[in-house]
Parts: sequence; structure tokens; C-alpha cells
Amino acid sequence: MDNERLKQQIRFLLEIDRLKQVIRQSYILGGTRKENAAEHSWHLALMALVLAEHANQPVNVPRVVQMVLVHDLVEIDAGDTFIYDIRGNAEKPQRERAAADRIFGLLPEGQRQEFRSLWDEFEARQTPDARFAAALDRLMPLLHNYHNKGRTWQEHNVKQHSVIERNTTINDGSATLWDIARQIIEDAVAKGFLAKE
Amino acid sequence: MDNERLKQQIRFLLEIDRLKQVIRQSYILGGTRKENAAEHSWHLALMALVLAEHANQPVNVPRVVQMVLVHDLVEIDAGDTFIYDIRGNAEKPQRERAAADRIFGLLPEGQRQEFRSLWDEFEARQTPDARFAAALDRLMPLLHNYHNKGRTWQEHNVKQHSVIERNTTINDGSATLWDIARQIIEDAVAKGFLAKE
Repeated sequence: MDNERLKQQIRFLLEIDRLKQVIRQSYILGGTRKENAAEHSWHLALMALVLAEHANQPVNVPRVVQMVLVHDLVEIDAGDTFIYDIRGNAEKPQRERAAADRIFGLLPEGQRQEFRSLWDEFEARQTPDARFAAALDRLMPLLHNYHNKGRTWQEHNVKQHSVIERNTTINDGSATLWDIARQIIEDAVAKGFLAKE
Repeated sequence: MDNERLKQQIRFLLEIDRLKQVIRQSYILGGTRKENAAEHSWHLALMALVLAEHANQPVNVPRVVQMVLVHDLVEIDAGDTFIYDIRGNAEKPQRERAAADRIFGLLPEGQRQEFRSLWDEFEARQTPDARFAAALDRLMPLLHNYHNKGRTWQEHNVKQHSVIERNTTINDGSATLWDIARQIIEDAVAKGFLAKE
């Protein structure tokens, strides 16, 4: 056994424990606390397994699962950037690339490149797998927010047009899920969870 | 689009959000709080992706990943049973089967059977995939406990012989990981994190 390789793998696995302390803006259902990025990634992986049939183009489900499992690892260094935070999002790519260099760099040869290229693919949003993964990453916060009566939207003074604008990427991954998302947004406005303007 | 099917899938995905509120006995690294079962499942999925080469027999990695992603869903109804709790573990199988009936039963036809049979396979520990998944599920708490200076062992007055006895299942999935586990246990005793008897 190549003991050094295994030790390197375990160091990576211990390092990523820190994703459990990266706090997002969405609340878990019931609203007792905000969600962390590790449990969010778990939830997206389940979404990929359950909703894959609704992707616009056929997707490789295990690749999408792996992609969403690792998509937020860079936040260990770069932090979570709220999708409606314009300034934070402008500086986000360079912060996240540096984080990807360090974190995926902890993995041994081979795995380092495999995980990194999957993350690069997710970020580029060009392949069917990446577009579908991105759609899931946008849909879940909408669902959370709707079922928590719009709490995060209200806390950040987010309006309907921003929610539509920032979430049209769902349509690139799944027109079916975008239909559902639009219904949720309209219903959120009708119920007073989300301000029209 | 079969809208009723999609709505059923979304209801399942919302229901499983509750796994984020199932609290385990292990602490996250740094010890600021106990770990929940959703983030734990995410961590095991990453372990499967990174450590698969150490399985005793070749494993189907995407199946192992899916297995660990769903392995704890029954705890939404049945709760987390600490592995050193003898009475709790005696009643565990019937509690968990009832939970599996209800929770996987939320999924539409086809997916219901697929997820359930994967969970049954995990529970039975007979296939290489299930044995490897179970090994990961045992190894991570050992790593957490060791790096948190044995806190959970001490809180529950757990001794070395129990730790060895309850974790030999690691060997069924990966002799290589069992070697590492044994080194960790011995080192934990040497450092005073785990009581010898």
C-alpha cells in the first residue's frame, strides 16, 4: 500500500470538514437556523439523483452528483457569496480560483486533476451536466425561501425582478424546473413573501 | 410533463431537509458543535469518491456514493442511534424499516424501489459496495473523535475494546482502512484520548 497517498487523501477529507462551518443565507425548513454549505451540497446530490429525468439534455448522473458534492468546497477559503450581492460576486472568480488551487491541491496526483476539472466545468456552465447542476443549485434556495415565507428575500430586500433575473439559469439546465420555479416566484409574490418591486 | 410525478419528487426533497436536524454524537472538527446526519452523509460521499481504490474488492463508486447519500434518511423518523448504545441498537432494525417504508414511499414509482433496495443492501452488508460504504461510515467518526481528542468516547465512557469490537466491520470493507483505524485507536490510547479499560 502506498501509505503516503492514503495519508494525503485523509488530510484532504479532514480539511473539507470545514465546509460544515460555511454558513449560507438560506434557512433550513422550519427556519431554526441558516444552512451550511456541506448539508446544502448533500441536498443537491439527492436532487440530482431524483430530478435528472427533467434535464434539458441527457446528463451523466454520477458526474452531476460528484460535481454538486464538490461545487462549494472553494467556499472553505473564499466564503459564501450571496447571489444578490453584486460587489461580492465581482471579486468572486479570483478568490475562488485561488481556493480551488489550494483545496484540490491537497489531493494526490490524478484525483487532484479530476476534481479540479469537474469544478472548472461546473463554473463554466457550458456542458449539459454543469448546466443541470447549476439549475439545482438555484432551485433549492427558491424552494427553501418559499417554504420559509420569503425570509431571506425580506432580510436582504430582494425584489421579484432580481429573483427572476438571477434564476433564469435554471432554464438553461431544465425548462421543466424553470416552469416550477416561475410558479413558485409568482405564488411568493401573491402570498406577500416576495416584494413585487 | 408529468406534473404530479415532479411534485411528488419535490415533496420528497423537501421532506428530507429534516435530516439536517438529526444530530449525531460526533463533533465536527474544532468541536464547536455536534455533527448532523445530512452533512455527515455528504462527507461519506466524498470519502467514497476519494478512497474507493482502497476497497477490498472493486466497487461501483456511483452506487456507493448513492448508498451513503441515502443511508441515514431513516433517521428522520427513527433518530440517530449511537453505535455503543446496546439497548437502542436492539430495537433499531424495526424502527428503521418503518421509517424506510414511509420516507422512500414518498418517491414516485421506480425511484421508490431503487432507493429502497439500495438502503436494504446497505443494511444487509453482504455486497462489496455495502461493505465498503459501511467501512466509511465507521472510519469517519473514528477520525473525528481522534482529532477532537476523544471527546465523544469520554462523554460516553467508551473503552478501547468496545471501539475495536464495534469497528472491525471496517475490515470487511477495506483491510487498508482497518490498518489505519487500528493505528488511530492505538495512538488515541497512547495519547490519553481513549481509556484502555
